[in-house]
Amino acid sequence: MSSSGKLPNLASDAVLKQSIPVPEDFEEVKGIDYSKDNAYNMNAVDLIKSMKTMGFQASSLSKACEIIDDMRSWRGEHKDSLPEHERTGEFDDEGVQKTTIFMGFTSNLISSGLRDTLRYLVQHKKVSAIVASAGGIEEDLIKCLAPTYMGEFSLPGKGLRDQGMNRIGNLLVPNDNYCKFEEWIVPVLDTILQEQEDAMKKLGSEGLNADSEAIWTPSRLIDRLGKEINDETSVLYWAHKNKIPIFSPALTDGSIGDMLFFHTFKASPQQFRLDIVADIRKINSMSMAASRAGMLILGGGLIKHHICNACLMRNGADYAVYINTGQEFDGSDAGARPDEAVSWGKIKSEAKSVKVYADVSMVLPLIVAATFAAERPN
Amino acid sequence: MSSSGKLPNLASDAVLKQSIPVPEDFEEVKGIDYSKDNAYNMNAVDLIKSMKTMGFQASSLSKACEIIDDMRSWRGEHKDSLPEHERTGEFDDEGVQKTTIFMGFTSNLISSGLRDTLRYLVQHKKVSAIVASAGGIEEDLIKCLAPTYMGEFSLPGKGLRDQGMNRIGNLLVPNDNYCKFEEWIVPVLDTILQEQEDAMKKLGSEGLNADSEAIWTPSRLIDRLGKEINDETSVLYWAHKNKIPIFSPALTDGSIGDMLFFHTFKASPQQFRLDIVADIRKINSMSMAASRAGMLILGGGLIKHHICNACLMRNGADYAVYINTGQEFDGSDAGARPDEAVSWGKIKSEAKSVKVYADVSMVLPLIVAATFAAERPN
Amino acid sequence: MSSSGKLPNLASDAVLKQSIPVPEDFEEVKGIDYSKDNAYNMNAVDLIKSMKTMGFQASSLSKACEIIDDMRSWRGEHKDSLPEHERTGEFDDEGVQKTTIFMGFTSNLISSGLRDTLRYLVQHKKVSAIVASAGGIEEDLIKCLAPTYMGEFSLPGKGLRDQGMNRIGNLLVPNDNYCKFEEWIVPVLDTILQEQEDAMKKLGSEGLNADSEAIWTPSRLIDRLGKEINDETSVLYWAHKNKIPIFSPALTDGSIGDMLFFHTFKASPQQFRLDIVADIRKINSMSMAASRAGMLILGGGLIKHHICNACLMRNGADYAVYINTGQEFDGSDAGARPDEAVSWGKIKSEAKSVKVYADVSMVLPLIVAATFAAERPN
Amino acid sequence: MSSSGKLPNLASDAVLKQSIPVPEDFEEVKGIDYSKDNAYNMNAVDLIKSMKTMGFQASSLSKACEIIDDMRSWRGEHKDSLPEHERTGEFDDEGVQKTTIFMGFTSNLISSGLRDTLRYLVQHKKVSAIVASAGGIEEDLIKCLAPTYMGEFSLPGKGLRDQGMNRIGNLLVPNDNYCKFEEWIVPVLDTILQEQEDAMKKLGSEGLNADSEAIWTPSRLIDRLGKEINDETSVLYWAHKNKIPIFSPALTDGSIGDMLFFHTFKASPQQFRLDIVADIRKINSMSMAASRAGMLILGGGLIKHHICNACLMRNGADYAVYINTGQEFDGSDAGARPDEAVSWGKIKSEAKSVKVYADVSMVLPLIVAATFAAERPN
Repeated sequence: MSSSGKLPNLASDAVLKQSIPVPEDFEEVKGIDYSKDNAYNMNAVDLIKSMKTMGFQASSLSKACEIIDDMRSWRGEHKDSLPEHERTGEFDDEGVQKTTIFMGFTSNLISSGLRDTLRYLVQHKKVSAIVASAGGIEEDLIKCLAPTYMGEFSLPGKGLRDQGMNRIGNLLVPNDNYCKFEEWIVPVLDTILQEQEDAMKKLGSEGLNADSEAIWTPSRLIDRLGKEINDETSVLYWAHKNKIPIFSPALTDGSIGDMLFFHTFKASPQQFRLDIVADIRKINSMSMAASRAGMLILGGGLIKHHICNACLMRNGADYAVYINTGQEFDGSDAGARPDEAVSWGKIKSEAKSVKVYADVSMVLPLIVAATFAAERPN
Repeated sequence: MSSSGKLPNLASDAVLKQSIPVPEDFEEVKGIDYSKDNAYNMNAVDLIKSMKTMGFQASSLSKACEIIDDMRSWRGEHKDSLPEHERTGEFDDEGVQKTTIFMGFTSNLISSGLRDTLRYLVQHKKVSAIVASAGGIEEDLIKCLAPTYMGEFSLPGKGLRDQGMNRIGNLLVPNDNYCKFEEWIVPVLDTILQEQEDAMKKLGSEGLNADSEAIWTPSRLIDRLGKEINDETSVLYWAHKNKIPIFSPALTDGSIGDMLFFHTFKASPQQFRLDIVADIRKINSMSMAASRAGMLILGGGLIKHHICNACLMRNGADYAVYINTGQEFDGSDAGARPDEAVSWGKIKSEAKSVKVYADVSMVLPLIVAATFAAERPN
Repeated sequence: MSSSGKLPNLASDAVLKQSIPVPEDFEEVKGIDYSKDNAYNMNAVDLIKSMKTMGFQASSLSKACEIIDDMRSWRGEHKDSLPEHERTGEFDDEGVQKTTIFMGFTSNLISSGLRDTLRYLVQHKKVSAIVASAGGIEEDLIKCLAPTYMGEFSLPGKGLRDQGMNRIGNLLVPNDNYCKFEEWIVPVLDTILQEQEDAMKKLGSEGLNADSEAIWTPSRLIDRLGKEINDETSVLYWAHKNKIPIFSPALTDGSIGDMLFFHTFKASPQQFRLDIVADIRKINSMSMAASRAGMLILGGGLIKHHICNACLMRNGADYAVYINTGQEFDGSDAGARPDEAVSWGKIKSEAKSVKVYADVSMVLPLIVAATFAAERPN
Repeated sequence: MSSSGKLPNLASDAVLKQSIPVPEDFEEVKGIDYSKDNAYNMNAVDLIKSMKTMGFQASSLSKACEIIDDMRSWRGEHKDSLPEHERTGEFDDEGVQKTTIFMGFTSNLISSGLRDTLRYLVQHKKVSAIVASAGGIEEDLIKCLAPTYMGEFSLPGKGLRDQGMNRIGNLLVPNDNYCKFEEWIVPVLDTILQEQEDAMKKLGSEGLNADSEAIWTPSRLIDRLGKEINDETSVLYWAHKNKIPIFSPALTDGSIGDMLFFHTFKASPQQFRLDIVADIRKINSMSMAASRAGMLILGGGLIKHHICNACLMRNGADYAVYINTGQEFDGSDAGARPDEAVSWGKIKSEAKSVKVYADVSMVLPLIVAATFAAERPN
């Protein structure tokens, strides 16, 4: 194009295209007002409020907190005003219906310092049920026996194996911790195998029937381990204490599995069994019994799908907060947006939902400080 | 700095720092030679070879193929030259030791067109054992009953739910498919519950013992489903046929779980049980029996950890190929590099390993075409 | 819930919800047919065709190839049938209008073995204009002087710096390469500074006017460097030869910038100048002149935005293929889907577009083999 | 393996391998102590302190704040004790050497509510120089003319284009804003073109020489725009006021480029020029003059590389904080870890550095609240 040409309309029309008048309900993007005193060393609640109109994941994080507060504060009918068969789900101390909150977390969160935050939520009955991967169970117990340490993502594996140091991201777990765990759990397994066998002797060929005492499930075993560990730093301890079931359908997929495997040799021909059918009935029944259902999903994989699937049984959760780093482009369930779960009936189409794209460790402390732990419990 | 200054040595020393002589074993980066006839409409083997020295994930993809070829081609001793107790693991048709290959895949891969590729590998006994998530089992069966369809990642969930169309990334599964699945599987569940009960009647209080016929595990159920579906398009069918065990410790986490849940109401007070302890023993035993162990892990989450954990029982796999989109920064097992597994003893420090950062659907067809399916089977 | 209860309709209605009849135009998900001979050591064209109905990124990759073939094969009117002022843009050898293809790539792709593929595209005039980041210019030249080598992502930086080995992902560039580059480029810079000064002497105070010979832009300098390097392995050489402009508005952001910086000390008070206004006029004018515009964007950041912005001048590209690993959740332009560009008028709403979520190195060789290089050029 | 076998030593040795005694300097992973009053509605400083030992990105975030505090608090010699030629770089109000802080940010951060936070940092002279992409310049100015609004990531592009609403992630910018920008900037461009021409008349053929008044660079234009906008909400305004240079080598890559392009038609045969060579000299000189150099890089692409490259001129930055979502596997500079920059001499090997893998919008408010804005400025 010659330099002396005229600007073609094509370009100016495209660049300077007029827009419709801005609708009245549009919300302006704005950030922190640093003329205010509360903009300095901000507290969690103010920070989260300011992030609402910042855009990108700042807004998603703020929305996650709104949804959590919604699911926490919802109240329905008083128990007494309900017909007998509807007196299911969760009620608050005054006997009014509240949301059944399903929280899922992956193993690494228990390995991290988030364990204290997760325990806080269970200790103070902030959630109704938990789904965890196997490591999320055993690492909670192991931390009662010996600590996990800070490391680096880049530490070479060979040197670590030579030293017996297991790496989880930028954390290190001495392998001795697993030896201590073995010492602790073997007597427990001996005892419950005995209980299984005693029940079988009583029940005989009816030993597999519904409600059989001979049947151990992952959630039953986890509850028992929480009782046995008897340690106030433990998530499992408080779950046992507060009757909050912890589901972990693939409970054998980790150190507990190693120990159960070893135990098969010791116990033979007797063998401890873990049934997963009774547990799927249990979690699905909780979902159906709930007046309202909320999902707080920390991570991806099994723990995410399991809670979503349970919520299908009630034709969808009413609230959903996903926090993970998965992306949808590979068609993984881990990376799917809440809207994919809507298509399945796992989240109601009118539900409030959000996905926060973040490593949980980085955002959960702030989220909890601005919601569940905005005020000190009495 | 005034414009008339002299160039400070600081900058020129930093920018023009001399390097050591290039070591002789350094490999030059180079790409495709388009002067060659085979650079046009390239075939898989040539493409993968060319990618070796391209860098980034091109090199990782090429290395993955090298490792797969290594694990496929390794041969040890002839059976006859081994003492009785070492005659374990896999042998080729001539009776020579070969690698036990554990392949893991997530549910979505079966939903995708990769199912045909995975079935090919099982049909032609290219792998020794499989770990799959629950959806990876049921979607294989469901596809024998009705197809999955192409969709879009951006289709809104509400409209899909109204139409009964379930979205998996950019795929759609009509909900009728699950109704058909229910019709198909209920009689099977009735039958195996009966078998369980018959066995219990025979065994009584010893019904939970090792090797009890009354005990069903996920792998046993999956094998039976593969037999019942009796369809040559099915992964499960060929796994049954070729005695390749498929493990899925959280088998209740999906549609099969829904069906088992429904079945508890129908069957009560009898109840079908699925024990996961016997399966952890089975997969761990395969790992220990193997002469050499290779891992081919497609996706993350449970299926990745389960294979790695099994390989810890033999103090590490000899070959490892991970393909997924997870990142290590969030400390997830899904995102961990192979070197993290080395620290745990799940991969040998001298093993050949690689992680390919990619959606599996995009690279597995090429990988298989360049390795397992480089030549047509007879 | 008691074990003897009845299955509530709530669950069965949700799980067994009926779907609408499958619309006739729905496409079944299917994969490779291994009964066919062409399923073994597959060639690029067959592989890409098979991936079309596989789902996830396999389908995106296949769609990318379809769009590339569409943009390559589109033909409009013959030059002779067009009024004078419409005889702009690209024409094929027969004088018929064809698509103006803008290709963008980031520096690392030139460092990788993809350089040979990119050079192939330029050598055979498969693209009409290029936008590259600064490193994408200088690394092409440097590779004519000395090679880049394979390395590892995990090589520690301190040791490498001590040896003068610069790391780019899993590649290594000896710092001597940059010393050689300095030796090569300084005489060129001396010459063009002289040319600038000669032109200024002629033009005096009109030296900055439109079309002034005294004005050097990044694209003019790049063209000259391509001429000077005179090496058939070079992208720049062929771009010069084939009059394919290469834009790089931030050309000072790398080694060339270092050299220009050093040169200011040597040349003072004279100073070589690089004007970026004339280049924005040049690329925008190409976009406006194009009969149809296609975008092939390899990577993110500047090179992506620059091409999109140029296409706004024509009210949108007609074809768009993005390949990169960016995600949209952080609101980055790099991660934005093509549909975001539609809102800006940078891609036409009726355009064919796709984003492939992948490291370019892993997929471009296959894409090119199945499209631009499906057949050997004469 | 028969069920009555003995547990092989292979497995127990691998699983129960002993570890070395835990070194004394190992730091235990721990989280928030909810027995403390400050664990409720936590403030930024306490939150960040607690995250230090949490692991994963919580620890990285905490480390980023430590490094920022280190770079802010470092002090060297008093000016008076230094020889004349060493009196370069930054000094505090008492005349003592302090760190030169280079902050880079991408366009989208200015579009988001982070603009207020970035402006705060510039207004209170918390940083020494800025590198921004073109959009980061113009969106700051445009926001002085009309607001940006909240939207959704999933809003379809066609409908938005029809309404003239441009989408940036989950934000919306009415296209009228760009029309207003054109009205505002054209007279400014007219004026500076006149200034350029006046200078050329004075200087004639020496118009391109070092320090020529006729030469406009991106940083000079940006400074002028900051002066002209004269609005206290603007980053550019405060940068002008506080003499903090803003570099943007590809300043034509956006709306300013569109306006400069249009202006070439209006002004012809005169033409406004933007030279990028003088700016590379300017930023490199700042790096060499600095007593210590710190990098605060928010996002990837050009802005990241440009700051790193400038720091090579001093043989490496002393402090480096990267925050972005890029990954290293594709060999992109955006995704490279700080350790890659060490290999290039862009970060000193003894420097303190960290990369936080996060969307900046989600973490910068917290980071700033815990560091730069921990206390209210007087």
